[in-house]
Amino acid sequence: MLLTTIYLIAIIAEAMSGAIMAMRRGMDLFGICLIGTITALGGGTIRDILLNHYPIGWVKHPEYLLYTTLAAIATTFTVRHLHHLRYLFLVVDGLGLVAFTIIGCNIGLAGGLHFSIAIIAGMVTGVFGGLLRDLLCHQMPLVLQKEIYAMVSLAAGAAYVAMLQLGIGAGTASVAALAGGVLFRMLAIHYRWQLPSFKNADYRGFD
Amino acid sequence: MLLTTIYLIAIIAEAMSGAIMAMRRGMDLFGICLIGTITALGGGTIRDILLNHYPIGWVKHPEYLLYTTLAAIATTFTVRHLHHLRYLFLVVDGLGLVAFTIIGCNIGLAGGLHFSIAIIAGMVTGVFGGLLRDLLCHQMPLVLQKEIYAMVSLAAGAAYVAMLQLGIGAGTASVAALAGGVLFRMLAIHYRWQLPSFKNADYRGFD
Amino acid sequence: MLLTTIYLIAIIAEAMSGAIMAMRRGMDLFGICLIGTITALGGGTIRDILLNHYPIGWVKHPEYLLYTTLAAIATTFTVRHLHHLRYLFLVVDGLGLVAFTIIGCNIGLAGGLHFSIAIIAGMVTGVFGGLLRDLLCHQMPLVLQKEIYAMVSLAAGAAYVAMLQLGIGAGTASVAALAGGVLFRMLAIHYRWQLPSFKNADYRGFD
Repeated sequence: MLLTTIYLIAIIAEAMSGAIMAMRRGMDLFGICLIGTITALGGGTIRDILLNHYPIGWVKHPEYLLYTTLAAIATTFTVRHLHHLRYLFLVVDGLGLVAFTIIGCNIGLAGGLHFSIAIIAGMVTGVFGGLLRDLLCHQMPLVLQKEIYAMVSLAAGAAYVAMLQLGIGAGTASVAALAGGVLFRMLAIHYRWQLPSFKNADYRGFD
Repeated sequence: MLLTTIYLIAIIAEAMSGAIMAMRRGMDLFGICLIGTITALGGGTIRDILLNHYPIGWVKHPEYLLYTTLAAIATTFTVRHLHHLRYLFLVVDGLGLVAFTIIGCNIGLAGGLHFSIAIIAGMVTGVFGGLLRDLLCHQMPLVLQKEIYAMVSLAAGAAYVAMLQLGIGAGTASVAALAGGVLFRMLAIHYRWQLPSFKNADYRGFD
Repeated sequence: MLLTTIYLIAIIAEAMSGAIMAMRRGMDLFGICLIGTITALGGGTIRDILLNHYPIGWVKHPEYLLYTTLAAIATTFTVRHLHHLRYLFLVVDGLGLVAFTIIGCNIGLAGGLHFSIAIIAGMVTGVFGGLLRDLLCHQMPLVLQKEIYAMVSLAAGAAYVAMLQLGIGAGTASVAALAGGVLFRMLAIHYRWQLPSFKNADYRGFD
């Protein structure tokens, strides 16, 4: 119930973030709606394909496509005012990341899969929509380069699955993972935490 | 019958258009054949994966791979003459777009899916081959930026599905959608119709 | 048995090659592990999706994800020494290409598919991991441009399937395909064999 509410708010926020990137890249209204929709629903789609979990969410619930399309269109009218909502977007994006993750973990566990695959399913749900957005917008995937983003998903997913294993109820585990995950994400943004990268290592012989 | 004929002509034309883009990007003969084949058959492949509609078309009909590969190879010999056929290509591409769309809608409807998903299945069939081509050729997807292309597919698909709902026979509906869709596409090219885009909007706060 | 051993060595080598490319592109540790894993396991994943062959390899064997992740992490510590192993990498990569191909062919044949689709399944297994790596690392897919790479996979797969058709045992056919394929690949590298490309053809009318 809580998860579904957060999920619906999150796909709208993700669709708006996809739409903004598509607008900046000069895409037309169709491209804006498509990128918005793929940003919001692409992670769950890839998860369902990888896990053979059919029908895919938006095939079963076509209204999701309506929500993301309307959110993308609304973004074209309101973009000049959205910067006032910048911090709200960050919180909703963080909440959405963890909600997507928990939903993905649940689908993996319901399929009887190994707990590690359930955590991966959560991460794919949370992260791969943005990956597809960046691919289609023709830029290096942000999530692979900067910011603690995927790690939040992996940590929240691992904590959630571990709590379930320990016999904690799904409701309590969800709320705890959401709170912990969003806190982790906000701290990561605030303190600019980064994973190490190695651009200037010595690559002699690999040209 | 008519649809199958148009389909076969269209996958050859799409393979040739993919091959030309691959040639221009400096790809080798393998790359040219692969890009040609993915341009022609990629949209239907993605549709089948999304709808869990197996076996995928070219797995069932391996001869399609032969046609697209031969078309790509033939393109390398004839490219210097193909510009004489420029207008023919535009018409065949428009016909193919609508034929792909109708075939996709039919598969969605045959699967008992919501009419909106059937229309999406048609658009994916018509448009996503070109999207994959642009991704693999490392350029911003054209269909997301310029030209009324995907909208032709959505309009033709919606009209086709609506005609079926109204009790019009599949044959009549197909011919009407083909005629209307190709006319729409040709008018869009001739008059350079475009959907709005928003590159220069005010993005303060989203850097 | 031999195939499984080569497979495990090959996914580690592929993960290391993916990790090196990700490091050079400035990705963070998560990106490095993800690109390494996708390079190693992406070809088989796409093959399984195309053939409706579930569960996908790494869903059934989550330990593969552990191997590729550890290999990627190890690469970040050792990259400055890896150039000493340059030739070993080339041999392992060639062996892996053919082992992936044979495994893919076997899965296609076991599914009762047309022999041409089995050969395609082999090529997808061998080549598409590197294709995904290049897409996500935002560079033109190398395999579409230069080097006889995919052709080695197609030739080894075709020879392997033909030997089986002729009644030769799977073990013998595998060893012969491995030996012939790796020799082909080494000769192609040594003599810089290339397929023709057509970058400077006359494209008038296709602007």
